[in-house]
Amino acid sequence: MDNPSVAIIGAGAVGRVLARRLTARGYRVEAVLSRSEAGARALAAEVEAPVASASLADLPEPARLVFCCVPDDAVGTVARGLGPVRSDWSGTVVAHTAGALPAAALYNLGEQGASLLSFHPLQTFTAASRPEAFDGIYVALEGDARAVALGEEVAAGLGARSITLATEAKARYHLAASMASNYFVTLMALVGEVLASIDLDRREGAALMRPLVETTWRNLAGQLPEDALTGPIARGDRRTVETHLDALDEHLPHLIPVYAALGTEAVRVAVRSGRLAPDAAQHVLDALHDALGPYYKEP
Amino acid sequence: MDNPSVAIIGAGAVGRVLARRLTARGYRVEAVLSRSEAGARALAAEVEAPVASASLADLPEPARLVFCCVPDDAVGTVARGLGPVRSDWSGTVVAHTAGALPAAALYNLGEQGASLLSFHPLQTFTAASRPEAFDGIYVALEGDARAVALGEEVAAGLGARSITLATEAKARYHLAASMASNYFVTLMALVGEVLASIDLDRREGAALMRPLVETTWRNLAGQLPEDALTGPIARGDRRTVETHLDALDEHLPHLIPVYAALGTEAVRVAVRSGRLAPDAAQHVLDALHDALGPYYKEP
Repeated sequence: MDNPSVAIIGAGAVGRVLARRLTARGYRVEAVLSRSEAGARALAAEVEAPVASASLADLPEPARLVFCCVPDDAVGTVARGLGPVRSDWSGTVVAHTAGALPAAALYNLGEQGASLLSFHPLQTFTAASRPEAFDGIYVALEGDARAVALGEEVAAGLGARSITLATEAKARYHLAASMASNYFVTLMALVGEVLASIDLDRREGAALMRPLVETTWRNLAGQLPEDALTGPIARGDRRTVETHLDALDEHLPHLIPVYAALGTEAVRVAVRSGRLAPDAAQHVLDALHDALGPYYKEP
Repeated sequence: MDNPSVAIIGAGAVGRVLARRLTARGYRVEAVLSRSEAGARALAAEVEAPVASASLADLPEPARLVFCCVPDDAVGTVARGLGPVRSDWSGTVVAHTAGALPAAALYNLGEQGASLLSFHPLQTFTAASRPEAFDGIYVALEGDARAVALGEEVAAGLGARSITLATEAKARYHLAASMASNYFVTLMALVGEVLASIDLDRREGAALMRPLVETTWRNLAGQLPEDALTGPIARGDRRTVETHLDALDEHLPHLIPVYAALGTEAVRVAVRSGRLAPDAAQHVLDALHDALGPYYKEP
């Protein structure tokens, strides 16, 4: 099957890197539409798209794959704006790249005959992202069968792998991705905050932790987290956990809830690994629970 | 100053990698002492140490730098066992490699004249660690001035950088390191648990997240976490946070506390960055707080 002609709506980080990569991989980008006409023109010039416009009404007829690369809360608005542009949307796949939304966020176009697709490249894109950012990543697909089949082709064309999700799995998929990226950053911010409290400059603190985090990440490559977990909680060392909690209580009491919440999960991971016996686990949980006393109540 | 002769007590992962690296860097390892005589003999043969024994009484007189590379809860026992081995410990630096303990864990030897040192290489060592594991890492030093001065020399000799901590900072330093390594592993276990709930095989889930985590880590290299944070919380997207919380409530309710605890911290990070306005932050916190309702009480 020939590659369909593509329209890109949205000239932000995702729209730009996607348009560039599609063009490099032999797709014809027919149009770039963007709220900012200047943005549309700049990207259209780069990928040699004949149409650049700030109006959805300029969506050209040949475009049979329409990518909405707009912020999550603009997807519905764009879909409603596209509705009247064609009387019949059958034969067109309309995709959005919003991680948290199902394909059905475009439902009005589906009612007009379009095939709907959620096409989420699992990667963090910034203005500086290069087209190679697609190499080896996964694209999560969700939508109707025809749209997903095309999504698989396009993902492969981009150099990515794809994974198809049930609609009801989409929220948990996005939750997992948000935790992996955003909560990893948050964790490193917490580590920096603890180090700042002992007068380590934020950048020195980050440099200090870098080799440790990288070794930990390498240890996670070949094995499950259960088997990679080390440290006081994994070995049921209640005394060290109490040393940590005392230090927090004295210097950074606001971090006790997050320390205890992650500690509780670390206990579960260690128990699952088979290396932490239930009674040793209970000792650690008791220490965490005691520290949480002022915050926690039994549900 | 000539390198002092070294004795290594403990032939576990740290003792082994330290003995090998010291030998490679021109230190003479005089003795390996270990609970397991076989372990002591094997390591001593490897680093050409003349003494290998399961008895602390065999500590040879020339050893002027004694490294106790034993588990945290064995440091005090080893120190008490070493006490009677020499009548006068002055002229000897006794170090331990336990991250959570101050040099004073060896206090009885200090009372007998030894200089005391906490020498903690900030790295995760396993049985498979190679001597190169010291390259470019930091060693955290804490102890009396003479011991710390020697610790700086030895760290540099190993190819590591060193950082000197006040005694009262040691617990927070170890807390930060434990969080950076153990809670990173825990976070990845949580991500895997969420993905397992949508029927993704654990290893496939890990492969899915790998490029995202690596890009996130690269983004953390050049900037502070405040500036690297992306995602729904950073942009004050309460609706997506609620989508996550609803998904947890329906499928994985036990993860609500840790999601909310990390989310609360992510809000703080985003506000510090200046990109999340206080009222948008409050909307997100309200959503997290509502979800925590059954667990949380005002302290």
